[in-house]
Amino acid sequence: MSEAKNEGTNLQLFLKRIPQGVAGPDDFEVRETEIPQIGDQQVLVQAHYLSVDAALRLIVRDSDEFLFRIRPGDMINNTFAGQVIESNNADFHAGDYVLAPLGAQNFGVTNGADLEKIDTSQAPLSGWLGGFGTSGLTAYFAIFEECKPQPGQTVVVNGAAGAVGTMAGQFAKLAGATVIGITGSAQKCQWLTEELGYDIAINYHDRDWFDQLEAAAPERIDVIFDNVGGDILDQSLKHIATRGIVLLCGSTSQYAQDEMVGPANYIWLGTMRARMQGFVVFDYADRYADARRRMAQWIADGQLKLPEYVIDGDVGDFPRAFQGQYEGKNLGKMLVRLPAAR
Amino acid sequence: MSEAKNEGTNLQLFLKRIPQGVAGPDDFEVRETEIPQIGDQQVLVQAHYLSVDAALRLIVRDSDEFLFRIRPGDMINNTFAGQVIESNNADFHAGDYVLAPLGAQNFGVTNGADLEKIDTSQAPLSGWLGGFGTSGLTAYFAIFEECKPQPGQTVVVNGAAGAVGTMAGQFAKLAGATVIGITGSAQKCQWLTEELGYDIAINYHDRDWFDQLEAAAPERIDVIFDNVGGDILDQSLKHIATRGIVLLCGSTSQYAQDEMVGPANYIWLGTMRARMQGFVVFDYADRYADARRRMAQWIADGQLKLPEYVIDGDVGDFPRAFQGQYEGKNLGKMLVRLPAAR
Repeated sequence: MSEAKNEGTNLQLFLKRIPQGVAGPDDFEVRETEIPQIGDQQVLVQAHYLSVDAALRLIVRDSDEFLFRIRPGDMINNTFAGQVIESNNADFHAGDYVLAPLGAQNFGVTNGADLEKIDTSQAPLSGWLGGFGTSGLTAYFAIFEECKPQPGQTVVVNGAAGAVGTMAGQFAKLAGATVIGITGSAQKCQWLTEELGYDIAINYHDRDWFDQLEAAAPERIDVIFDNVGGDILDQSLKHIATRGIVLLCGSTSQYAQDEMVGPANYIWLGTMRARMQGFVVFDYADRYADARRRMAQWIADGQLKLPEYVIDGDVGDFPRAFQGQYEGKNLGKMLVRLPAAR
Repeated sequence: MSEAKNEGTNLQLFLKRIPQGVAGPDDFEVRETEIPQIGDQQVLVQAHYLSVDAALRLIVRDSDEFLFRIRPGDMINNTFAGQVIESNNADFHAGDYVLAPLGAQNFGVTNGADLEKIDTSQAPLSGWLGGFGTSGLTAYFAIFEECKPQPGQTVVVNGAAGAVGTMAGQFAKLAGATVIGITGSAQKCQWLTEELGYDIAINYHDRDWFDQLEAAAPERIDVIFDNVGGDILDQSLKHIATRGIVLLCGSTSQYAQDEMVGPANYIWLGTMRARMQGFVVFDYADRYADARRRMAQWIADGQLKLPEYVIDGDVGDFPRAFQGQYEGKNLGKMLVRLPAAR
């Protein structure tokens, strides 16, 4: 990784208009501004990697229904991994690596309260945005604390090759479960079983994907780790096991739909005494450090990977990366690597 | 109640064809047969009350997806409350009152293993099919064991005037919760608040029913006791509280639909760390006696009612009663009172 660069301009990404369908480059606008000056107690942070999150699509909808919203003219919400350039805050020093929820831009200023220090001896900088960051922690606590699959139980992860799915499948394997991944291409299926230890992977573009799922889970499904919602969740619900758990982690198939659709087979939850439950990783914030110590050990032992799919570019390449994620290009966490990291 | 009559013929109700829409009289067929003879160890039971259950509509669908199904030509599944007429089984004697899952007919024969004895000192015979039977036990264990509302919490019961809803609302009140009922007419609303102790009742035919719900639950909804599914569940989900529970008890709005629809707002479960869960009362079978002792005490103390809506008729009047239930005619459990009980 090169030394942090500070070349005089800051690129910032704004929402230009409410997207129709999956958001594309025309829905965003890049603006070039001055690198901000810091005041008393403030910290200047330079971004190295931008996180690309599918859930962004949910908050750029033309709807006030959700708790958080980005409107046309607002900067795109983003957490980046980067480095402190300048600090008037005793808690941070130039050169510190940090996670910074400062938006999609090259430079951000903060009083430091929202920064999280990164220990690159545990995992590389980019990993802290993905498998070692919120995506990985989400999968970790969802599997080990919410779903608690037992050895021999069957866990189905959909969106299996995504940022959270790749981690959830690995954690479910570490818990001793049989893990079935559902994903969108034969290439991804091969990668899931050969590289990530999934027992079985199913391409949902196959006409008989549901028959494949039935055959793969003859004793029904104890845990559905749901990242996508829509038809894949709906069909899978027909095979939920008695007292099974549907862990709602995301609904990527629905975020760009004008009218979201719920799973009609939710009524199977009744018959099977099963539950469909939400989960918010931030409730476990006081245990992140413990989780990361355990994950770092697994990484060191070769038992855990932090898959990432990196697009080299600048702030203006974020929309293309975002679109690529909805096209299923990524294996693992989608990131934009900025000039400062190259 | 008159002495049991045994007048020489047995009326039995069969499914004639797969219903379109809500089932009506033309979908059923009454057949007149001989009163059956009992063999060794067998018991002859005469029906006094037929239970009319909305869920019947789900099992007469043209679908093999569900665990149990009635096909054209099959007798209609029914549990009746009645009296033993003749017994070759030492466990039962003529005159015993029993719950008998022997179908929609006047007389049934069994080896006794499926009969449940009724103690009419705890609750009247008809009550054992409704508030003191499966409907009431479902509400009891769902509220006290699954949802466990705390004093001051808000419970919304939809299908509030139905067999289960009437009991769930009363139990939630006994647990100290604020109870909001959703039902289908102003008359029912008045009855819920004046007779059953609901704090607020909302008529979902009102254009502003959802605004009324928002106003009634300013601190959001801790428990949604869902008997109906569909739009009422879907809209209510927008107001689920943090760690709220949606108890899935029924989906009556969906049973007669060609294509069932799931609740699109299930994604609110994620944001709110809430859960939507199934429940099967039979899991608590070994505790029914305890529950009924407690319920009998509440009844004796005037704290609990067993609402029922009785149609006087014979086996052939069951379809009309069933249709009436889908038209929302009933306050409480819908029953057909047969000649033997009059």
